[in-house]
Amino acid sequence: MKTRAAVAFGAGKPLEVMEVDLEGPRAGEVLVELKATGVCHTDAFTLSGDDPEGAFPTILGHEGAGVVVEVGAGVKSVAVGDTVIPLYTPECRECEYCLHPKTNLCQAIRTTQGKGVMPDGSSRFSLDGKPLMHYMGCSTFSNYTVLPEIAVAKIRNDAPVDKVCYIGCGVTTGVGAVVFDAKVEPGSRVVVFGLGGIGLNVIQAARMVGARQIVGVDINPAKVELAKKFGMTDFINPKEVHDVVEAIVDITRGGADYTFECIGNVNTMRQALEACHKGWGESIVIGVAGAGQEISTRPFQLVTGRVWRGSAFGGARGRTDVPTIVDWYMEGKLNIDDLITHTMPLDKINDAFDLMHEGKSIRSVILY
Amino acid sequence: MKTRAAVAFGAGKPLEVMEVDLEGPRAGEVLVELKATGVCHTDAFTLSGDDPEGAFPTILGHEGAGVVVEVGAGVKSVAVGDTVIPLYTPECRECEYCLHPKTNLCQAIRTTQGKGVMPDGSSRFSLDGKPLMHYMGCSTFSNYTVLPEIAVAKIRNDAPVDKVCYIGCGVTTGVGAVVFDAKVEPGSRVVVFGLGGIGLNVIQAARMVGARQIVGVDINPAKVELAKKFGMTDFINPKEVHDVVEAIVDITRGGADYTFECIGNVNTMRQALEACHKGWGESIVIGVAGAGQEISTRPFQLVTGRVWRGSAFGGARGRTDVPTIVDWYMEGKLNIDDLITHTMPLDKINDAFDLMHEGKSIRSVILY
Repeated sequence: MKTRAAVAFGAGKPLEVMEVDLEGPRAGEVLVELKATGVCHTDAFTLSGDDPEGAFPTILGHEGAGVVVEVGAGVKSVAVGDTVIPLYTPECRECEYCLHPKTNLCQAIRTTQGKGVMPDGSSRFSLDGKPLMHYMGCSTFSNYTVLPEIAVAKIRNDAPVDKVCYIGCGVTTGVGAVVFDAKVEPGSRVVVFGLGGIGLNVIQAARMVGARQIVGVDINPAKVELAKKFGMTDFINPKEVHDVVEAIVDITRGGADYTFECIGNVNTMRQALEACHKGWGESIVIGVAGAGQEISTRPFQLVTGRVWRGSAFGGARGRTDVPTIVDWYMEGKLNIDDLITHTMPLDKINDAFDLMHEGKSIRSVILY
Repeated sequence: MKTRAAVAFGAGKPLEVMEVDLEGPRAGEVLVELKATGVCHTDAFTLSGDDPEGAFPTILGHEGAGVVVEVGAGVKSVAVGDTVIPLYTPECRECEYCLHPKTNLCQAIRTTQGKGVMPDGSSRFSLDGKPLMHYMGCSTFSNYTVLPEIAVAKIRNDAPVDKVCYIGCGVTTGVGAVVFDAKVEPGSRVVVFGLGGIGLNVIQAARMVGARQIVGVDINPAKVELAKKFGMTDFINPKEVHDVVEAIVDITRGGADYTFECIGNVNTMRQALEACHKGWGESIVIGVAGAGQEISTRPFQLVTGRVWRGSAFGGARGRTDVPTIVDWYMEGKLNIDDLITHTMPLDKINDAFDLMHEGKSIRSVILY
């Protein structure tokens, strides 16, 4: 079949919207008609050429929502007509990782996904007879895409796809880090470094689980208003204090129970650890640092009870936890609407990248 | 009263055994007749002059066992005749730390203890009318010592004090890191860096809780035999492999569930983290690094599921957990006897330091 898609032909080049060829689903695969997709920093990172796994030509996009239109042989967990969210972190429920209680990093299709192909080693996308690479196992910048069954989360059919597509990456990354990885308890004092889309989702999850104090840290005071709407109780601008760690320890009465680094800066990662409370504070790294960069601290910080951990896709097991997060949105516990600042048709997708780079959007969503 | 004690008059000088003056217990304090005390690396560290909190003249020693001979006003939890182990990490059961479920670092008397005095700000020891400093709140290199009630663990009276004194520091530090901090599960693969006294206690605790594999890492192959007796299943000599992290990942089939750094070297701390299994491996820093030294790694190690934490006094709440560890020893679950390689009277205490520095002892115990 034919499908419209935004193709990335090379690093640093604008996407080109065109018709491409898409093969139907093979055994264990599903064909999904995407209704909406977010445009994420990770797409921009790969498009920039800095992603060591990045391969071109490819169809980017990993934050979508749509409807199943065809299933391959043996598919049992979803059916035609189901609303689904594609999962760049799948959940096979059979591998060593899925069976381990402490991780969400299913490895069932990790190798082929990293190479831009389906689990059988081939691509379903092509142009003029030459294959186009899949991206993060999703390729949501195509109106139709083929996904492994284990890489789709079936969600309720009444969920608005133009909003819940954001749960495919950003919402889950922030909310999940609080709920599934840190397991923040009611009454906790939480500090969030970076008030972008991830930070705001951390903030609203901390509020949802009953944190008593939620301190935002950002060098841009323009972000304060929205962060307060999402639950931030205190704000620290590192440019306005002598020492950000001291300022946090002071305002949290001894240090944070949990800190979240949502920037990707190794210096703020250190601050986030050292701003934790002696004895029990835990710091969760969410941001992705530049290649080769390292974090450091004195081991005394750990020996006196601080814990350093990280989070990927919010620790969420996609097929199990993404439907729950959709429920939380539908129940009014999470605000996604105010985070989607721009929408546009696929033809205008390059505008979404421009808005992101200019810092004018929190999230742009493409509507098919 | 008078008591015999080994006095440290200054950094780098041998201890001098002599009679000193000891005041009786004030309110909330107990007088303990020590029957035995271990000599630990931490005593040597302070005696060397490298300890920033070290103050002289002082009476060192923090790993003792003895009997209560007098109690001050208001003391309720112990009575004359009780066998006790002094606690350099007390347990007041009232402070913010004691009431928090994630830490054992009671802060009730932290400030005065760090200054070498009792909680009321004064010393009970003196010589020729001039005060001698207490050490780590214990000063077990004195035949009699005065301790706050919250800094003694009451243990069973049938426990041999010449063995269980080691539970006052080394045994609890290693065993507790496994049991109370890491909470190692049965079937885990465990890696231990450094096969000294702490490492051997980590090993036997890992065996006790049902670890399936216990890999020891040490540059000294002479330590293999005893480590095997304590439960080590595999040995890696970093001098004999190309890359110790690769060797560990290989032998543990993907990485360790838990690694313990029992050396105090920031390079092995990094190796210990990076030898953890992707998705769930946790590394616990026990060793104390040199002043100002820092640990480093790429944050990717954390984002892909490894956890970096530390352990002090094994995460044990002394009054609650030390009696339990004594029980484990009495029930034959822990071997302490083979770790106490030398015993001597107080007059020979400087020999214990020599044996330690020469690497000839695991633990020397002074018998009063």
